[in-house]
Amino acid sequence: MTHTIRIGICGYGNLGKGVERSIQQQADMTLTAIFSRRGNVGIEPLDPATKVEHIDRVVDYQDKIDVMILCGGSATDLPEQTPMLAAYFNTIDSFDTHAKIPEHFAAVDAVAKHSQNISIISVGWDPGLFSMNRVLAEAVLPAGETYTFWGKGLSQGHSDALRRIDGVKNAVQYTIPSEDAMNRVRQGEQPKLSTGDKHTRECYVVLEEGADAADIEQQIKIMPDYFADYQTAVNFISAETLQAEHQGMQHGGVVLRSGRTGENTPQAIEFNLNLGSNPEFTGSVLVAYARAAHRMKAKGQSGAKTVFDVTLGDISAKTPEMLRQDFL
Amino acid sequence: MTHTIRIGICGYGNLGKGVERSIQQQADMTLTAIFSRRGNVGIEPLDPATKVEHIDRVVDYQDKIDVMILCGGSATDLPEQTPMLAAYFNTIDSFDTHAKIPEHFAAVDAVAKHSQNISIISVGWDPGLFSMNRVLAEAVLPAGETYTFWGKGLSQGHSDALRRIDGVKNAVQYTIPSEDAMNRVRQGEQPKLSTGDKHTRECYVVLEEGADAADIEQQIKIMPDYFADYQTAVNFISAETLQAEHQGMQHGGVVLRSGRTGENTPQAIEFNLNLGSNPEFTGSVLVAYARAAHRMKAKGQSGAKTVFDVTLGDISAKTPEMLRQDFL
Repeated sequence: MTHTIRIGICGYGNLGKGVERSIQQQADMTLTAIFSRRGNVGIEPLDPATKVEHIDRVVDYQDKIDVMILCGGSATDLPEQTPMLAAYFNTIDSFDTHAKIPEHFAAVDAVAKHSQNISIISVGWDPGLFSMNRVLAEAVLPAGETYTFWGKGLSQGHSDALRRIDGVKNAVQYTIPSEDAMNRVRQGEQPKLSTGDKHTRECYVVLEEGADAADIEQQIKIMPDYFADYQTAVNFISAETLQAEHQGMQHGGVVLRSGRTGENTPQAIEFNLNLGSNPEFTGSVLVAYARAAHRMKAKGQSGAKTVFDVTLGDISAKTPEMLRQDFL
Repeated sequence: MTHTIRIGICGYGNLGKGVERSIQQQADMTLTAIFSRRGNVGIEPLDPATKVEHIDRVVDYQDKIDVMILCGGSATDLPEQTPMLAAYFNTIDSFDTHAKIPEHFAAVDAVAKHSQNISIISVGWDPGLFSMNRVLAEAVLPAGETYTFWGKGLSQGHSDALRRIDGVKNAVQYTIPSEDAMNRVRQGEQPKLSTGDKHTRECYVVLEEGADAADIEQQIKIMPDYFADYQTAVNFISAETLQAEHQGMQHGGVVLRSGRTGENTPQAIEFNLNLGSNPEFTGSVLVAYARAAHRMKAKGQSGAKTVFDVTLGDISAKTPEMLRQDFL
């Protein structure tokens, strides 16, 4: 590569740190600056030479950054920040509020078309790599059913629900895909499966002193929406064990399509992620797509894009000749 | 879709028949004609209304076919036919002679650029979907190792080697991926694995009358290149059992990348195919990419392409709006 791609990170939580780590693994990229609403208070980049700026100074970097990777949340940060930053930079975000994707796409597209930048939205693994496999599998096997299983991974929403129970001091909840349900699909069945059929729930709960374990276990298992429709296991542990063993950021899941060709021939396509760290992996996906945004802009393309609009050649650091020779 | 994509099939062996079946599953496509070196002798399309023509008449169809899907072999058919047909049509082929891909690409590219057609080469599952996953996984996890496992599937070359042994009347050989090796990679190891470490071989042999089973089993197990370096199981069966149970076209395999992010965090990406029929599945992939060729030409692109140059949006029958709403 003749030109190093200059990256900016906007937002420095777990995801921003994952992006920072990932850039260090990419030979054709450099991290120019980290932007935060806090300014540089309390932010310590891996490389002390990395500039840390208040987000208000972002416009000063218009000619110094090729792609801005947005690492804020989908609820309030990204709906505001992506359109704002697309006016100055190619952008990548991981917007994942499913129902609002069309609206977000339209808002970003209008700005990016005007500024002639590329803004790839909803990048990551779901939405992202899982979405790509859903499209690929259905295009190849139009007769069939696609199933998405999540986990094993910690669910923030379900952990919060446990913590709201009186007598619970702290808790985490893991969503676990049902091996039995996955194997039925792998063997060519196309069963009707609810989210509860596809997943079980595993809770690790630290009790307040004097709390009634049996009563709390019962409250959890009948909690509507969160646990009632699932096979739920409740484990009581000490605060120390929770601290030591349940801070993991592991996650993953499976996209499985069971289809039929010809005279009812079974065919199955499976994509499976087993992630030691959700934010580090998601950050790695964002970084690969930053490369694509840079290349697509160089080809004269502009506007909002999704993973469905990007070629695999454009996310790879290798030349097309190398890819054809070594990867095809 | 406002316009039905008109497909031609060139070559009517197992793959051509798989393509024909797949077109019947795609609402936006129609099969216009099948071309063969035999003319229409002995060719009976699924739909009797499908035209069957000698390949010499292909030029008459220049304005009647949008995409020609080539279903010949890589040894002699495709090196000649793809450049020839790219002068008149968008083309899809499944060229899989790995060492000659750059040469084939160059020959096809020159013709397709001149005729302003799109020619997507080396489409299928390997090369094809497996290649895509190798590129995707390395782009996202640059620090790591990628492993390809094949099977369970019948290997023609190894079956032929068995049949050449004196005293063997008929035989088939299955290549089987080693579960143990796959599980090591899935668990985050990055072992050095030879092809023999990754696969075992399972032989089903029909003996000539009076042949010595023990002697033949020994000959098989020490055969260099084919079996000596593998764990090989030899089963003797009757001609009737071979006929009844071993004509299957099942195949499949796994692309697994084991990578590390951050401070040595394990991350694994796995793509897994379990195919009831290899030619029907490969045909289905070719057909999905025919849609992309048609769309790319409509956008003014031309030349030779591979799966690395095609977006997932272009292989899907759905509109970009539908994909964003329902698949992202």
